[in-house]
Amino acid sequence: MTMTGAEVNWFSEVSRLEPCNDGCFDAIVSSEWTIGDKPNGGYLLSLLGRAAVTLGVHPHVMAASAHFLHSPDPGPVKIETEVLRTGRSASQLAARLVQQGTTCVEALLTTTTIDAESSPYWDTGVPQPGLLSLEDCPRLVAASPGGVRVAIMEHVEVRLQPSSMGFTTGQPTGRGELRGWLALPGGEPFDPVSLLFAVDAFPPATFDVEFAGWVPTFELTVYVRALPAPGPLRILQRAQLVEGQKLDEACFAWDVRGRLVAQGTQLAGIRLG
Amino acid sequence: MTMTGAEVNWFSEVSRLEPCNDGCFDAIVSSEWTIGDKPNGGYLLSLLGRAAVTLGVHPHVMAASAHFLHSPDPGPVKIETEVLRTGRSASQLAARLVQQGTTCVEALLTTTTIDAESSPYWDTGVPQPGLLSLEDCPRLVAASPGGVRVAIMEHVEVRLQPSSMGFTTGQPTGRGELRGWLALPGGEPFDPVSLLFAVDAFPPATFDVEFAGWVPTFELTVYVRALPAPGPLRILQRAQLVEGQKLDEACFAWDVRGRLVAQGTQLAGIRLG
Repeated sequence: MTMTGAEVNWFSEVSRLEPCNDGCFDAIVSSEWTIGDKPNGGYLLSLLGRAAVTLGVHPHVMAASAHFLHSPDPGPVKIETEVLRTGRSASQLAARLVQQGTTCVEALLTTTTIDAESSPYWDTGVPQPGLLSLEDCPRLVAASPGGVRVAIMEHVEVRLQPSSMGFTTGQPTGRGELRGWLALPGGEPFDPVSLLFAVDAFPPATFDVEFAGWVPTFELTVYVRALPAPGPLRILQRAQLVEGQKLDEACFAWDVRGRLVAQGTQLAGIRLG
Repeated sequence: MTMTGAEVNWFSEVSRLEPCNDGCFDAIVSSEWTIGDKPNGGYLLSLLGRAAVTLGVHPHVMAASAHFLHSPDPGPVKIETEVLRTGRSASQLAARLVQQGTTCVEALLTTTTIDAESSPYWDTGVPQPGLLSLEDCPRLVAASPGGVRVAIMEHVEVRLQPSSMGFTTGQPTGRGELRGWLALPGGEPFDPVSLLFAVDAFPPATFDVEFAGWVPTFELTVYVRALPAPGPLRILQRAQLVEGQKLDEACFAWDVRGRLVAQGTQLAGIRLG
């Protein structure tokens, strides 16, 4: 689907904050960045990340860990922050997302200044996906195989390697792994705040094993490893274990230069078996 | 090294808490669970985990995320907790470790009741190490290649697959991966609290690339996936990227039944290059 400028649901708009008082911000959780009627967890964490860097101690989120207490409804929320420590090279903050007096997300964040000129000193070279070009990866549509409207997919461009698309026709591979591309609405460049969303943008990796309904995130941790170059991200998302109605997922995001820019890990609930 | 009962530096002892008042505990950070004079980060997180389950909302830590602000000195500390939400199947808490008024570690924890009878519904089967028996893996000694006393290694039994021991003789493999066994002092069984330590017990995986001095943890996230069977754990710890003087590590712990019982991920500082 293509959009004209007027229709673009910009990430910078849906994650916009209005300072309300000391360390507190107002935000509107978009009804369009949802799965069914539930806002995406990484999107919620990105609101807390934006609050953390807006406070101005350090400009970039380096590590963020969120625990999810309640799924907020789309609409107005408050972001409350507390600076825990201001250091020379890194600072730590706590942030929470509150809706009508109920805490929905609680997060800890470490911020720093990421050097735009940094380069890898050592890396394993794996597991960067051997991906087809973006154009050769089909875009996911805004309806899950379960029939739920996934509004966020109308705006965010999730393109999957054809070999990862089996679940859309009831033929998952059983590997528990999804590879593909991710782009923000309107092609907006990624930054450390939107990377907090990026590692939670793909469908659950277990769709490649067995389709399940809503997979609510209990915990999401993100490490931002480099400032991303403009352009879409290559994503690898994979699961390791489903046990006790819980699933883990690791997510890796590389920019168009092939640089690892973010790593995410999450523990989520899942109804299988 | 063997120890008689009287000399055993039990984990349950060095992680003991004394309730002091509402949601607050006193603890003593052991001078023996240190690297140089710095307490191990996973050990500090386990103190917060014990506080969280001692409050009694749910008996097991399921997810814990810690951000490290200051390294405390061995000695007395206070653990302050706050119950964020009490749910039927899971609860969330905040906990901090404070020494002489300075917050050293700030953590969020989700607790639950882990079913002792649960079993994997699906798993990838990888990357469980193909390990030699515990007896065939040499035990690490309490001195780092840099000459620093690593007191914790006198108590905790870290045994590495011979192929992971290259760094001890200046011959790392370059893979950034350590495999081996872990046992608590006196063979004390692991539980969800000590698993928070287990995934941070091994040396940095980058020792298998290049030796570095103190590698301070910025963030450590742990998922407890099952109640471990008594006995030592098989550990796989691996790094993916060193960039901007930072390193990530993923750690996996399997019990003697071969069940994945914990997953850890951390972002740490490192001086290389």
